[in-house]
Amino acid sequence: MTPTIQLASDLIRLRSVTPEDAGCMPMMVERLEKIGFKTTWLRRGDTDNFWAVREGSNQGPLFAFAGHTDVVPTGPEDNWRHPPFAAHIEEGYLYGRGAADMKGSLAAMVVACEEFIAKHPDHKGRIAFLITSDEEGPAHNGTVKVVEWLEDQGEKIDCCLVGEPSSTACVGDVIKNGRRGSLGLELTVYGIQGHVAYPHLAENPIHKLAPALAELAAEEWDKGNDFFPATSFQVSNINGGTGATNVIPGEVKVVCNWRFSTETTAGELEERTRAILDKHGLKYTADYKLSGQPFLTAEGPLVEAAQAAIRSVAGFDTQLSTAGGTSDGRFIAPTGAQVVELGPVNATIHKVDECVKAEDLDKLKDMYREILSRLLT
Amino acid sequence: MTPTIQLASDLIRLRSVTPEDAGCMPMMVERLEKIGFKTTWLRRGDTDNFWAVREGSNQGPLFAFAGHTDVVPTGPEDNWRHPPFAAHIEEGYLYGRGAADMKGSLAAMVVACEEFIAKHPDHKGRIAFLITSDEEGPAHNGTVKVVEWLEDQGEKIDCCLVGEPSSTACVGDVIKNGRRGSLGLELTVYGIQGHVAYPHLAENPIHKLAPALAELAAEEWDKGNDFFPATSFQVSNINGGTGATNVIPGEVKVVCNWRFSTETTAGELEERTRAILDKHGLKYTADYKLSGQPFLTAEGPLVEAAQAAIRSVAGFDTQLSTAGGTSDGRFIAPTGAQVVELGPVNATIHKVDECVKAEDLDKLKDMYREILSRLLT
Repeated sequence: MTPTIQLASDLIRLRSVTPEDAGCMPMMVERLEKIGFKTTWLRRGDTDNFWAVREGSNQGPLFAFAGHTDVVPTGPEDNWRHPPFAAHIEEGYLYGRGAADMKGSLAAMVVACEEFIAKHPDHKGRIAFLITSDEEGPAHNGTVKVVEWLEDQGEKIDCCLVGEPSSTACVGDVIKNGRRGSLGLELTVYGIQGHVAYPHLAENPIHKLAPALAELAAEEWDKGNDFFPATSFQVSNINGGTGATNVIPGEVKVVCNWRFSTETTAGELEERTRAILDKHGLKYTADYKLSGQPFLTAEGPLVEAAQAAIRSVAGFDTQLSTAGGTSDGRFIAPTGAQVVELGPVNATIHKVDECVKAEDLDKLKDMYREILSRLLT
Repeated sequence: MTPTIQLASDLIRLRSVTPEDAGCMPMMVERLEKIGFKTTWLRRGDTDNFWAVREGSNQGPLFAFAGHTDVVPTGPEDNWRHPPFAAHIEEGYLYGRGAADMKGSLAAMVVACEEFIAKHPDHKGRIAFLITSDEEGPAHNGTVKVVEWLEDQGEKIDCCLVGEPSSTACVGDVIKNGRRGSLGLELTVYGIQGHVAYPHLAENPIHKLAPALAELAAEEWDKGNDFFPATSFQVSNINGGTGATNVIPGEVKVVCNWRFSTETTAGELEERTRAILDKHGLKYTADYKLSGQPFLTAEGPLVEAAQAAIRSVAGFDTQLSTAGGTSDGRFIAPTGAQVVELGPVNATIHKVDECVKAEDLDKLKDMYREILSRLLT
């Protein structure tokens, strides 16, 4: 049982279902303060957050580890092979809610710092932790609030390593150096309610919508670029009708979402959508919600350090990716920070029997420590 | 207070909310038996029905009045100007649930027979009443069952006058000499559920459906003919989605309905729909339900008698129509009977403050009596 696996297990045993921290942060902070970190607690609403910094020399970047202690709910615990908060190890795998997303990463970060500082007590720059317990929930009182506070302090992160489980087959095979933007739309199309036997007295909003929806679904929004797949549009929900089979409904509601690349903007997507809806003569209301701008750390010291660290620990070249869902990196990147996500294999996250190969956590810890070495010595 | 208005009022005061008869049939039968009708009671399930016949001479047609004693619910009675079962008369209008649909017609039928038989006790042919208390409900135990019984008896109606409220501005201005068919479809389109951030791992059934639905909505199924408007297709309900905004749903359900003319058939509609769905490569299940074949009494003694009767009583030419919803005529027409619907103005049916111009009921009674005269003397 290595220190990293031990700490990951201890964290898993705390039932920190979002937005609860359940003692995870104090457990981390106690270790960090022992090696010279100074902590600022930033509780916002129902959410615990902390910012901890260890000062090095005057020269060098502000490097921050970012992550979250909260986990998604387990569902019925009886469905799990091992109890989800038991941190049971079987055949080399550590089981438990949060093992991969992302208490394993948190443990690797803390132990990586312990090892690095033991060897380089007078490192360059500063090492920081930006930790929240509201990443899996609405994310209103978590990282976004810490970033606001940092701006108020005049503090600016140069390099940020987010511990999200980025890997697909083995630890380090993929790092995320950006994320697509996410734009939501709630569309209501209006017609005139009536009886199906008297269609000339009614106007069917579903009929009006159908060709417009077909065009939206077939639209090529962009072709993507070297870093981003093409922007994709998906309808998640559509609902219209009174339940009665002989009534033409007065309205139909559609909920949809774009995951968009840096080749377009939320404003352009809205404008092109408006043009399609108007072309089809729809009467509608459209409520857009931008939940994340796309961001990209195309190159620079952080990406290079992560690539080199993975090559040195794992012996292979990692792959850069911007695929997948949103992460708290969306709040940090707009401040101008370089942002990279590197964490364990994500195959079991949010599922029953979430687990991680135990030895992967030590590899991840080594990668983190090597990144610190490359940037802060 | 004429006998027709009196009988209509007495019937309205009986709370015969579907499928209850509440004593309406006994009230009618008592009057009919006094003038020589013989009654057969045909209770089926929860529904009262009767068939009553008055024999005339051996020669001549079997003429039947058809109608229903049940009424639709009133909704909150406080919303009515006058209590819905009070049969209150104000400024020449008789108010009450069923005043127009169709207790006024039932009263006019009975009094028309009384007047006709008083003058022509030895009329030709036979006069019958086919009355149910399950027209406004599921219509499983009503007219359809009486028609089955008639077939078992080897009995065949030649001319059937249904008392449904056919008129639009003044009584007799429109008679229905047919109805469109009605075909329902419950369509479920299948895709592959997934996360909106990973659309390549999912297949969005709403996206697959949209162009097919656009094509169905734009399709010209036929152009109608002299008697029928063009076949119309309407989607009444569409539902897909888990409620979550980041999940591509696994299926979407659509409920739709055709009102179709005699230029097409239910089988042809199904086949053309299948071709459109298959062309778009949908994976789906389609559950069709035929709730009524179209029927038409294009010309013949009954239509001519009704036209002449209306001209003689009201002084204008009536208009033939096949528009609007279904009626019990759909069960009678397939036996080969000529079927015409003639009843009061339908502006207030199924609404609060249902009412009928009181003097219209006597005009309707005169029209009914004139039809009897033309067919049975």
